Amino acid sequence: MSTKSVSTSVINRLPRYYRYLGILLNSGVTRISSKELAHQMKVTASQIRQDLNCFGGFGQQGYGYNVEMLHKEIGQILGVDKAIPAILIGAGSLGRSIMGQDDLFQKRGFKLIGAFDKSPKIIGTTLKDWLVVQPADDIVEFCRQHHPRMAVICIPRTEAEKLAETLVSLGIDAFWNFSGYDFTYRFENVSAVNVHLGDSLLTLSYLVNHRDEDEA
Amino acid sequence: MSTKSVSTSVINRLPRYYRYLGILLNSGVTRISSKELAHQMKVTASQIRQDLNCFGGFGQQGYGYNVEMLHKEIGQILGVDKAIPAILIGAGSLGRSIMGQDDLFQKRGFKLIGAFDKSPKIIGTTLKDWLVVQPADDIVEFCRQHHPRMAVICIPRTEAEKLAETLVSLGIDAFWNFSGYDFTYRFENVSAVNVHLGDSLLTLSYLVNHRDEDEA
Repeated sequence: MSTKSVSTSVINRLPRYYRYLGILLNSGVTRISSKELAHQMKVTASQIRQDLNCFGGFGQQGYGYNVEMLHKEIGQILGVDKAIPAILIGAGSLGRSIMGQDDLFQKRGFKLIGAFDKSPKIIGTTLKDWLVVQPADDIVEFCRQHHPRMAVICIPRTEAEKLAETLVSLGIDAFWNFSGYDFTYRFENVSAVNVHLGDSLLTLSYLVNHRDEDEA
Repeated sequence: MSTKSVSTSVINRLPRYYRYLGILLNSGVTRISSKELAHQMKVTASQIRQDLNCFGGFGQQGYGYNVEMLHKEIGQILGVDKAIPAILIGAGSLGRSIMGQDDLFQKRGFKLIGAFDKSPKIIGTTLKDWLVVQPADDIVEFCRQHHPRMAVICIPRTEAEKLAETLVSLGIDAFWNFSGYDFTYRFENVSAVNVHLGDSLLTLSYLVNHRDEDEA
């Protein structure tokens, strides 16, 4: 199955399809029309069909989708059955709370194998009841031994910038990035998904302050 | 200034422009060409000009942008000088760590005036050294007295769904939403920005697992 031509927008919508199908599955829904799925997800039925067609299509025209099968197939496309080794860099409040979410990694194709911080107060503390936070100075040696591919970046932008080259040279090629530093700016062969909390809050600020104009 | 026709994509790019200009400003850059700004932000110069034209345009053809002025003007468009009253619903690990980010609200147009949780372990604890977490049962009375307009939703999806109608009826019309519940599905006159950590992690999973195909 070739996915060469899949656009970023489609890729960004796939996790949402997967999540909604998971909710339907848990509610006991076994079959759903593309129209009904579209209504619930606030997209058009044709959008869903087009998106799924990028992967060969799964619809049964006239019979709707088999929820369990579609959920499973989208899950495989997303790679939820993988266990890509990952490390957390920055085990402060944000890093800990993100990693503390139930089943966050196990259900989404990653496996946490290490956590690092430079603060003496945090080094040696335990994460998720089983993972001891190691000194940031040990990252290089750890990566050489255990070959993580993904890093969750929960340190400030300037720190992330300093560390970037080391991480990439150690074989880390995927970043779940909360730092505001843009890893793809200097490094071409890495994947990064940036979660910028401040930016999303500013978007909300815009929406609130311009709602009246939009309605005018 | 009318912003009636501003698209969601432009709105989502504005905070990023604002953030980059802030970084430039802190680095002492006073003037930048649209070409150089575009290069740093990995968009095209024409994209930046088009986006800014939605708000009347700020460019000085041939002279580039005045960084301080552009930063200030985009800030005003985003509403960073406002102090819209906001409450946190769910003061567990995620809620606390989000609100614990330095200057998160003050610099982005909001003001935290209350925090609520239903766990006896969390009620009565202090947030950000000055805000005492109140029982979730007190939300209604608090909203009637203090009229918050925005709520940061850090509770599970099913809990958010139960609470949604109450919050909207109390005048909350903006949601910074970490819950996975879609507030705009049932309520039309509210603004919501959803941060779905799980979805963003799945997007990264997709990117990592399909990188070789994309390169093929």
